[in-house]
Amino acid sequence: MAKAIPSRSEDYSLWYNELVKKAGLAENSPVRGCMVIKPYGFAIWEKMQQTLDQMFKDTGHENAYFPLLIPKSFLSKEADHVEGFAKECAVVTHYRLKNDEEGNGVVVDPEARLEEELIVRPTSETVIWDSYKNWIQSYRDLPILVNQWANVMRWEMRTRLFLRTAEFLWQEGHTAHATKQEAIDETRQMLVVYATFVEEFMAVPVIKGVKTESERFAGAVDTFCIEAMMQDGKALQAGTSHFLGQNFAKAFDVKFANKEGKEELVWGTSWGVSTRLMGALIMAHSDDDGLVLPPKLAPIQVVIVPIYFKDEQLDQIEEVVNPIVKELKSMGISVKFDTRDTHKPGWKFAEYELKGVPVRLAIGPKDLEKGTVEVARRDTKEKSFQPIDGIASHVSELLQEIQENIFNKARSFREENTKTADTYEEFKQLVEHGFVYAHWDGTAETEDKIKEETKATIRCIPLDQQEEDGTCIFTGKPSKGRVLFAKAY
Amino acid sequence: MAKAIPSRSEDYSLWYNELVKKAGLAENSPVRGCMVIKPYGFAIWEKMQQTLDQMFKDTGHENAYFPLLIPKSFLSKEADHVEGFAKECAVVTHYRLKNDEEGNGVVVDPEARLEEELIVRPTSETVIWDSYKNWIQSYRDLPILVNQWANVMRWEMRTRLFLRTAEFLWQEGHTAHATKQEAIDETRQMLVVYATFVEEFMAVPVIKGVKTESERFAGAVDTFCIEAMMQDGKALQAGTSHFLGQNFAKAFDVKFANKEGKEELVWGTSWGVSTRLMGALIMAHSDDDGLVLPPKLAPIQVVIVPIYFKDEQLDQIEEVVNPIVKELKSMGISVKFDTRDTHKPGWKFAEYELKGVPVRLAIGPKDLEKGTVEVARRDTKEKSFQPIDGIASHVSELLQEIQENIFNKARSFREENTKTADTYEEFKQLVEHGFVYAHWDGTAETEDKIKEETKATIRCIPLDQQEEDGTCIFTGKPSKGRVLFAKAY
Repeated sequence: MAKAIPSRSEDYSLWYNELVKKAGLAENSPVRGCMVIKPYGFAIWEKMQQTLDQMFKDTGHENAYFPLLIPKSFLSKEADHVEGFAKECAVVTHYRLKNDEEGNGVVVDPEARLEEELIVRPTSETVIWDSYKNWIQSYRDLPILVNQWANVMRWEMRTRLFLRTAEFLWQEGHTAHATKQEAIDETRQMLVVYATFVEEFMAVPVIKGVKTESERFAGAVDTFCIEAMMQDGKALQAGTSHFLGQNFAKAFDVKFANKEGKEELVWGTSWGVSTRLMGALIMAHSDDDGLVLPPKLAPIQVVIVPIYFKDEQLDQIEEVVNPIVKELKSMGISVKFDTRDTHKPGWKFAEYELKGVPVRLAIGPKDLEKGTVEVARRDTKEKSFQPIDGIASHVSELLQEIQENIFNKARSFREENTKTADTYEEFKQLVEHGFVYAHWDGTAETEDKIKEETKATIRCIPLDQQEEDGTCIFTGKPSKGRVLFAKAY
Repeated sequence: MAKAIPSRSEDYSLWYNELVKKAGLAENSPVRGCMVIKPYGFAIWEKMQQTLDQMFKDTGHENAYFPLLIPKSFLSKEADHVEGFAKECAVVTHYRLKNDEEGNGVVVDPEARLEEELIVRPTSETVIWDSYKNWIQSYRDLPILVNQWANVMRWEMRTRLFLRTAEFLWQEGHTAHATKQEAIDETRQMLVVYATFVEEFMAVPVIKGVKTESERFAGAVDTFCIEAMMQDGKALQAGTSHFLGQNFAKAFDVKFANKEGKEELVWGTSWGVSTRLMGALIMAHSDDDGLVLPPKLAPIQVVIVPIYFKDEQLDQIEEVVNPIVKELKSMGISVKFDTRDTHKPGWKFAEYELKGVPVRLAIGPKDLEKGTVEVARRDTKEKSFQPIDGIASHVSELLQEIQENIFNKARSFREENTKTADTYEEFKQLVEHGFVYAHWDGTAETEDKIKEETKATIRCIPLDQQEEDGTCIFTGKPSKGRVLFAKAY
């Protein structure tokens, strides 16, 4: 495995693509815009899934599964929703193939045309609220706290592995509530769950905020989001949580009898994160030698590479290493002892660097003599010799330290690349290199013009926005606080 | 929750459908043939998934994810495969909707027609072997042991919840090997994994066998299967494992350089189980009062229902029950303490019976006085009073006993309803009520005729088939052993 990825400074975009492929995370498929998630990439996604799934369950949610295909008419029931998704839908029109009578192989059977076209779900609000109509009669049936792990499809024109693909994997939570306040609380709770996950497991710091009207989810009253900074200073929206108001309840006529027996429309939320998080994870931490994975999500946390020339040396090494492997496993640490004789140690070092394994132990005959082992950490590339005695607890502590260090490094980077701008000139310069807090007059028109001229968008109105009198950088109109601008993925 | 399901003897088929709906497992969706898997049903499926996933990992497999959509031309590359699946494919022909200019709402945009139609995967051999072509160069790249959890679609005309739905969830393992023997060993290994899972977790006894040519998977050289008996005596194919030979390697030109540097075609297997297992689980054990779940797959293993009139009585009960809940949880037992005051104990009893919760504890003021608790087991409906002291370990043992009892009951039922037939007359009678072992002349023609006349099919040639000279029940031609016939789901 030759480390043939370009450097970030050379070509950040190419660095990312090559890294994704060379590290065995994903590759393009023959189907336009769809990806194949390879075993190593999927193992990381599985760790994300397991962690998130537990967090959802801990907050009272249950999983369910709704159909992949959605009748076209459902999509049209919520006006904003169809407007937002109609332009990028995969449409199923037929349900059978047949042998062409003129010998052109297998063709679509024109007689098997569906009466109503079906859409491959781009998101499931419509089909789910159609079900909720039957599930909900009284306040006793509420709240409904359901999540679904699924594949969805949005026919994107320009795609990039993990970041923007026609098909992607995600989870979508869909909840129904008796009161507005409860739905808002749920929306905010899930935003906090996402922020906690991304910061504590992915080691990526995020800014929590609310989207402006133009960036809102199609059909939502309010869209909350978490925004992360990538190493090129661009923002990546890592998760969204939508307060749907009564929009989908209206569209699908979902009402409940309240405690007084009066009929009311149900309040809703939806929230999701996707395989896009893989893109964020890769771009936030990795370097020119390959992936840097936070220990909490690394499929292999520790790799042990034996250095030997003769088979009996390997035997001696194994005698020492096997108990270490056992001890690490008993501590819940995933460890791989790579005894393959088909590859040299140097090749293995490079491979595990590329794959972002947080800690590498190397051990040879000399180490055995001295009772030491070489410990290399992936994040800082530091190496040291440590006594074999007590190595498991050393590694355990080191993994924690790496987790924290990666997060701190990403946070420092974000702080260094986050500025405030008070003039449009200043803004235009700064927004090329990172996040910019600036005053905005609150209109979609100004937002659009800034986007047109600079390609930067308002990522969010931060939840911790300070009240501060100022003037819009673009129009000079009064503003009560700064919003977060950035170029974004 | 009124127990309004019909009895099995009244209408077995209706009993099944109503049970699935009333127990909150699944329901029909507005999309023809597709189902909504409701939270309680999904919780059971999740337990199945987790168990199987661990068994796959323990046998060296990794998960990955391949695209939902398959180019039409891929399907055609393996002749038998396209023959098997072309007639039931959902076909994506367009990638955009638009507002109709004549005001008919949202319509398919005729300008967004795909150059090549895409098929919603009915199974993924083609798209996966197309990837394997790039993954495999040398014997060092083999074996590839990959599994995928996914949704698939087969446009079935007559559908039934879980048993036969247009969309279903499943796992599909796809492995690639350097030698024929290794691929055959893998095929058989996965059959054993499935049999172990179905017997030890689902508590359903199975017969392992190999399919006849006419029942073989489209594209396989050999299809191995496990067959289970439902309570109406019909067979349900619970899992299949296919030895693909070099068929897909040929179709997708997947070759490897062997140790001598010579090019060879790769050998393949595929194997899968689906949400159909849910149907098997339900139909194998449940009774006229509702579900009977094996403890190992029950989302709630123990429910505790307090019996009280005054609030202070509930307080006293909680004082005793809370430590029991804690102890059960610490033993890894999932327990629900249902303190809702919106429903009476009798209603709760019926609900948990319907939902198949293996053990129910009921405790009221009199029990507190006596230091006892009422223990009811779902499988036999037996009730007894047990001392509160040591109740957790009693429950733990009882769960094991129930798991075994359910399996033994299903096995006895199968044994009672499995016969041998030596004449066609005898066969026709017996096959109405269960499994029949009979001699067959080995031809597809005879198999077809028997199917036509009796609706019974050869479920498999059992792996443990005894050599026995006999004559085909239909043609009288010589036969070397009996095969398993049954009517099937």
